[in-house]
Amino acid sequence: MHINQRPTRTIQPNADGTVAILDQTQLPHCVQWKTLVTLADACEAIAVMRVRGAPLIGVTAAYGLALALRADASDSALVHAAADLIATRPTAVNLRWAVERVSARVACLPLPQRAAAAWAFCAELAEADVVCNQAIGQQGLAVLRGLAKIGRPLRLMTHCNAGWLATVDWGTALAPVYAAQAAGVDVFVWVSETRPRNQGASLTAFELAEQGIPHALLADNAAGHLMQKGEVDAVIVGADRIAANGDVCNKIGTYLKALAARESDIPFFVAAPGSTIDWRLADGTGIPIEERAAGEVTHLPGVLAHGIVDTVCLTHARCAAVNPAFDVTPAALVTGGIITERGVCASAALRHLFAQR
Amino acid sequence: MHINQRPTRTIQPNADGTVAILDQTQLPHCVQWKTLVTLADACEAIAVMRVRGAPLIGVTAAYGLALALRADASDSALVHAAADLIATRPTAVNLRWAVERVSARVACLPLPQRAAAAWAFCAELAEADVVCNQAIGQQGLAVLRGLAKIGRPLRLMTHCNAGWLATVDWGTALAPVYAAQAAGVDVFVWVSETRPRNQGASLTAFELAEQGIPHALLADNAAGHLMQKGEVDAVIVGADRIAANGDVCNKIGTYLKALAARESDIPFFVAAPGSTIDWRLADGTGIPIEERAAGEVTHLPGVLAHGIVDTVCLTHARCAAVNPAFDVTPAALVTGGIITERGVCASAALRHLFAQR
Repeated sequence: MHINQRPTRTIQPNADGTVAILDQTQLPHCVQWKTLVTLADACEAIAVMRVRGAPLIGVTAAYGLALALRADASDSALVHAAADLIATRPTAVNLRWAVERVSARVACLPLPQRAAAAWAFCAELAEADVVCNQAIGQQGLAVLRGLAKIGRPLRLMTHCNAGWLATVDWGTALAPVYAAQAAGVDVFVWVSETRPRNQGASLTAFELAEQGIPHALLADNAAGHLMQKGEVDAVIVGADRIAANGDVCNKIGTYLKALAARESDIPFFVAAPGSTIDWRLADGTGIPIEERAAGEVTHLPGVLAHGIVDTVCLTHARCAAVNPAFDVTPAALVTGGIITERGVCASAALRHLFAQR
Repeated sequence: MHINQRPTRTIQPNADGTVAILDQTQLPHCVQWKTLVTLADACEAIAVMRVRGAPLIGVTAAYGLALALRADASDSALVHAAADLIATRPTAVNLRWAVERVSARVACLPLPQRAAAAWAFCAELAEADVVCNQAIGQQGLAVLRGLAKIGRPLRLMTHCNAGWLATVDWGTALAPVYAAQAAGVDVFVWVSETRPRNQGASLTAFELAEQGIPHALLADNAAGHLMQKGEVDAVIVGADRIAANGDVCNKIGTYLKALAARESDIPFFVAAPGSTIDWRLADGTGIPIEERAAGEVTHLPGVLAHGIVDTVCLTHARCAAVNPAFDVTPAALVTGGIITERGVCASAALRHLFAQR
């Protein structure tokens, strides 16, 4: 996708063996890149959400392991680095998936070959993410064509950011939107701001604007009202982890949108790669829900009128707050289906779609 | 209720014929009073939400009419002032109710008596609001006693601010909480922040802290998750307008909480005075939903680390946004009942409770 009309990926290996990431904590006010040199840099970038989005934290963690192996390629360093990376964020299963894939790839190699092999494999993982998301885009495009309206745009609502900023490129929930744009299907996107971290307001609205996709922001609270009023044709979101039965763990607030969509007979879709499915979990009740700092609810960053980025406090001093980062939407509420790189299916049919896993 | 342990009302007539209001746009960072001298002052205070909450804007509008009559007590001035006040905010029916009551009271009087009569009647309306809310508190207390748990606090979730700051004193949804505190019933309040204007974060959390009621803030998005996890015993909200069939118009986002409460078998209560019921409307579809400025979604005020109150922008420049200020919760979702000064009833029974209106 593009920033300032220039093709850009969210994470890019540098020739000197470091990794450049687009620092998403600075968006939309400032396009700023950060260089990851060490394992600690990668862990920090994931933990404070300089990179976020299940697919992108997977690839970032993979590169983090490659950086760790360059410093120390021993078995014990490999195990500890993998554990450090997996501990950064507990919910998205792609993180563990990517770390385990890199570990498995290098564990059988002699120590001197490990760092280079991991580095090369990370590039493969990044490329595979792009190809996978393009496939999700094409699968979703077929869905959107079926929903498209004559004489007016198809109005999709999304939550959080499951666009190209959540992946290496293209995105998951937004990949079908970009595919639709390329195919000449007229789309409009309702962007819910996604408190407390505002990924909708700061990231989704930004990337849609950069791609020239018409969109409007809403407070998360307004989602149900817009659906009641017939302003939404379909809801499409990403996922951080999907249980084997199709229960979907995604950004906090997804569940409320799914309830409202069902109440107004609006199809609700989840778009995610197969790596998001956790086959070890029969249903969503076992998914660990990350509890983040209260300060993310009571304090909010933004840009002041004179252009400086700063943080404001919204509450009285010492206000207690809870901050669960994800919720679980029961499979029955995913009424439209799950859009994957292998096809679109009902929640209950996920096992068949991925039978040859 | 109290600020800094001092009994305080949100609106107070001054001896010099002006009216003091607590400027709620400055809370919780600054306790600041503003003096209303003219009709225009009252209209501005309501429109920019220095005062808000259906009962309080009713009383403020009544005082606005009294201020107008002091400047010009003619019939035409009365009609125009009433129209200006009613136009400030379209959704809460108490505003129209209060303005029409003052108009009716003074219309038959000789011009020289009108201003003084209106002024005296405003004090009656303010006092009636306090008495009414105390009655709502006692009616709600009986409900809360029935829900109270042994060995742990009763955990109530509220939305927006329907506390004493939304009224002259005591509040509507929070009146039962204060009555419970006085009666020794152990309560804890989940405060949803209520984007875009953050009345939960800035007002409800503030007033609960001042009253010493245990509470914690949540992003609006987290409401469904907390209910799924069994962390909420009941939901209690206020109302801006209730249709004759019990459909409830309240702050945007109320509907999503009602959907989630029903899904988790959690009773959902609405607490409101009889003046909130619009008997002219058979159901909620005819309630005008105020659309406020997009800037309330894209920009957010708060206090910077060095104590200055300022506003930050959350989005890319020129981001479009919609901002419906209210939504309608169908009567069937008000599963707990409607708590009024006359008693608690199912939505369908409102007509019987207010039969002698």
